[in-house]
Amino acid sequence: MSDPGAALVDPADALVAVVRRLHARGLAPGTGGNMSAVAPGGDLVVTASGVDKGRLTVDDLVRVDATGRQRGGRGKPSAETALHLALVARGAGAVLHVHSVWNTLASLRAADDGALTITGLEMLKGLAGVTTHHHREVVPVLANSQDLPALAAHLGRAVDEHRHSHGVLVAGHGLYTWGRDLVEAERHVEVFEFLFEVVERATSGGIPWPA
Amino acid sequence: MSDPGAALVDPADALVAVVRRLHARGLAPGTGGNMSAVAPGGDLVVTASGVDKGRLTVDDLVRVDATGRQRGGRGKPSAETALHLALVARGAGAVLHVHSVWNTLASLRAADDGALTITGLEMLKGLAGVTTHHHREVVPVLANSQDLPALAAHLGRAVDEHRHSHGVLVAGHGLYTWGRDLVEAERHVEVFEFLFEVVERATSGGIPWPA
Amino acid sequence: MSDPGAALVDPADALVAVVRRLHARGLAPGTGGNMSAVAPGGDLVVTASGVDKGRLTVDDLVRVDATGRQRGGRGKPSAETALHLALVARGAGAVLHVHSVWNTLASLRAADDGALTITGLEMLKGLAGVTTHHHREVVPVLANSQDLPALAAHLGRAVDEHRHSHGVLVAGHGLYTWGRDLVEAERHVEVFEFLFEVVERATSGGIPWPA
Amino acid sequence: MSDPGAALVDPADALVAVVRRLHARGLAPGTGGNMSAVAPGGDLVVTASGVDKGRLTVDDLVRVDATGRQRGGRGKPSAETALHLALVARGAGAVLHVHSVWNTLASLRAADDGALTITGLEMLKGLAGVTTHHHREVVPVLANSQDLPALAAHLGRAVDEHRHSHGVLVAGHGLYTWGRDLVEAERHVEVFEFLFEVVERATSGGIPWPA
Repeated sequence: MSDPGAALVDPADALVAVVRRLHARGLAPGTGGNMSAVAPGGDLVVTASGVDKGRLTVDDLVRVDATGRQRGGRGKPSAETALHLALVARGAGAVLHVHSVWNTLASLRAADDGALTITGLEMLKGLAGVTTHHHREVVPVLANSQDLPALAAHLGRAVDEHRHSHGVLVAGHGLYTWGRDLVEAERHVEVFEFLFEVVERATSGGIPWPA
Repeated sequence: MSDPGAALVDPADALVAVVRRLHARGLAPGTGGNMSAVAPGGDLVVTASGVDKGRLTVDDLVRVDATGRQRGGRGKPSAETALHLALVARGAGAVLHVHSVWNTLASLRAADDGALTITGLEMLKGLAGVTTHHHREVVPVLANSQDLPALAAHLGRAVDEHRHSHGVLVAGHGLYTWGRDLVEAERHVEVFEFLFEVVERATSGGIPWPA
Repeated sequence: MSDPGAALVDPADALVAVVRRLHARGLAPGTGGNMSAVAPGGDLVVTASGVDKGRLTVDDLVRVDATGRQRGGRGKPSAETALHLALVARGAGAVLHVHSVWNTLASLRAADDGALTITGLEMLKGLAGVTTHHHREVVPVLANSQDLPALAAHLGRAVDEHRHSHGVLVAGHGLYTWGRDLVEAERHVEVFEFLFEVVERATSGGIPWPA
Repeated sequence: MSDPGAALVDPADALVAVVRRLHARGLAPGTGGNMSAVAPGGDLVVTASGVDKGRLTVDDLVRVDATGRQRGGRGKPSAETALHLALVARGAGAVLHVHSVWNTLASLRAADDGALTITGLEMLKGLAGVTTHHHREVVPVLANSQDLPALAAHLGRAVDEHRHSHGVLVAGHGLYTWGRDLVEAERHVEVFEFLFEVVERATSGGIPWPA
């Protein structure tokens, strides 16, 4: 989870395109979700708070430094920027936080266990560095909280404990996933949404699950 | 639920755009559903009865005063205009009534209880004024009736009793939601449809539900 | 179910538009489904056999008289034209036969009962002449057969016995619905698909069902 | 499963169009899936490894001979080309390997049985040569493996044993289907996806299943 050279161009236009695709797929209903990418020099470009993701333009992005101090943009950074920075500090080049029916259901079912482990599915190979369906992807599930600094610290600890994980769920809330760049992060969203839907339908439908 | 200054421009074009988006999402099948917005001066602009929502134009809108008397437009006001007026009398600037598989299922499951209570989900924060997933959203569920004045009175009493609610279900029929303006009302539709699908899939799939 | 004056213009272009919309909604996968409309003078314009419905043009339509004798068009009439004619003989101005996951599931669940009865849903009012959710829509379910003259006769008898029905299911096969014209028939497809999905999800999800 | 004269024109453009449609339907998430068609002369044109299927162009195709030796194209042939060649050696003119939630669920449910048998559904007639819903389609289910030569050999044996089958599932992985040409192969994808969804929903919903 580290490739500091990945972000060589300003990511604003690419970020807008990714956000609008995620919205079109129903992954950011209402004004939900927030998304970011690291710019050359290390600042983070992140969606502003309260913006309809289907109508997002570059004017709805803001720029913050690694401590969260605003460096540009007219809006207010998303309240969840602290969580993005916690992931960037651990090497992410882009962070996507999305809400979907399936990631919400997956997070609720696994909330008491504190993690969802997925294995036995070829689609796991869509996650960076995974080469076999025998891979065991551990997705930590954090309790939801409106105390965002505390949630960011919790997220950071979860990623430190699960260094091979590609995403974290917040219970009843949504998915955080990331990548070395936006292309990889968007692929991880697509892969995780597929996996969550398969796992939830299999579990609720009584399908024997590979272990 | 009151912001009389919200509707400062004629809402006809905006209403047509909202209705066509709702139809495109499958929320107004057949000629189902009806939608309205308050115009400057206080008249209500509402979809005419029996119109295919996918082909709606401004010519398919009618204008009524607060008592339901027609003030403009060539069509006949939707038969459910009385329900819209009951909500406008309580401060709504726009009212959207939609039919979907998930809101119908939610209404049927909760019909005997008389209300569906939703809590523990981050998406609740998409409802106006809600700031935490601990919010308990009480959605009253009314028995369906073809006696529309009676149903409108029933709706009004339900909203009076549940002043913090953002929507009302009619059993086997659909959702009424509203907002200070069309933007807020459309967001409430999107949020409620997400919530109903999550709640129904969680319940039927045996997922432990936050309380 | 009779309005002989409804079809006053040649329905070929309208039929092509309806068929392509049905295909785009996934209601005619593969080369499945067949659709027809009565032309002025009483001939039936019907989709040719084996045509991909997503690429249908007016050249893929054929014209038959009331006995099924071909009167125009280069293709071969759909093998199920006999079923369309059985419905036209009983007053239909347009007939749509569609395949969907939900109508297939509905047909399988109700196959042993010989009919699916739907009541208590507001969406029933989208069916011609229905004015209340208390309406009981009886949808006969026929056993499937590759003997199409026999199946057509069976369909005709079912409609004679259930003169207030708006559609017939064939088990494991699909839905036949109709209307005085294409607009009404297409609305009936939309209404029935909604109803079948609600009924099936409610039944499999253990939702108490209005009776 | 043999029609050597079917591929008379270079299939590159047609293959790109098919792949992009499959991606748009969600059947090739991430960089998943691979697709091929036989060119005049007998070489196989196949998608290159690791390509996003939504952005595929003819430059992302490679050409291999019957032994798998690369004959053209700048990319690397998909790692699963050996499975395509095993099917082409048995007469396929085009091979489509797709990932979907429903084919994954179907493969998991039937994995222990080694095959999924589907009967009693009219949609079976969308498979080449099938003329009745009484047809019993046996879809072998192979254990997944990252040893692709072994998996290709396993696939070949499964097709030899089930000469009337139109597709093979790999457990937790996806569907391989084929046809005399791309048009037929794409129709088989559409038909199988419909069948898998119906079978899985019927089974998990407790619907009595025709046998």
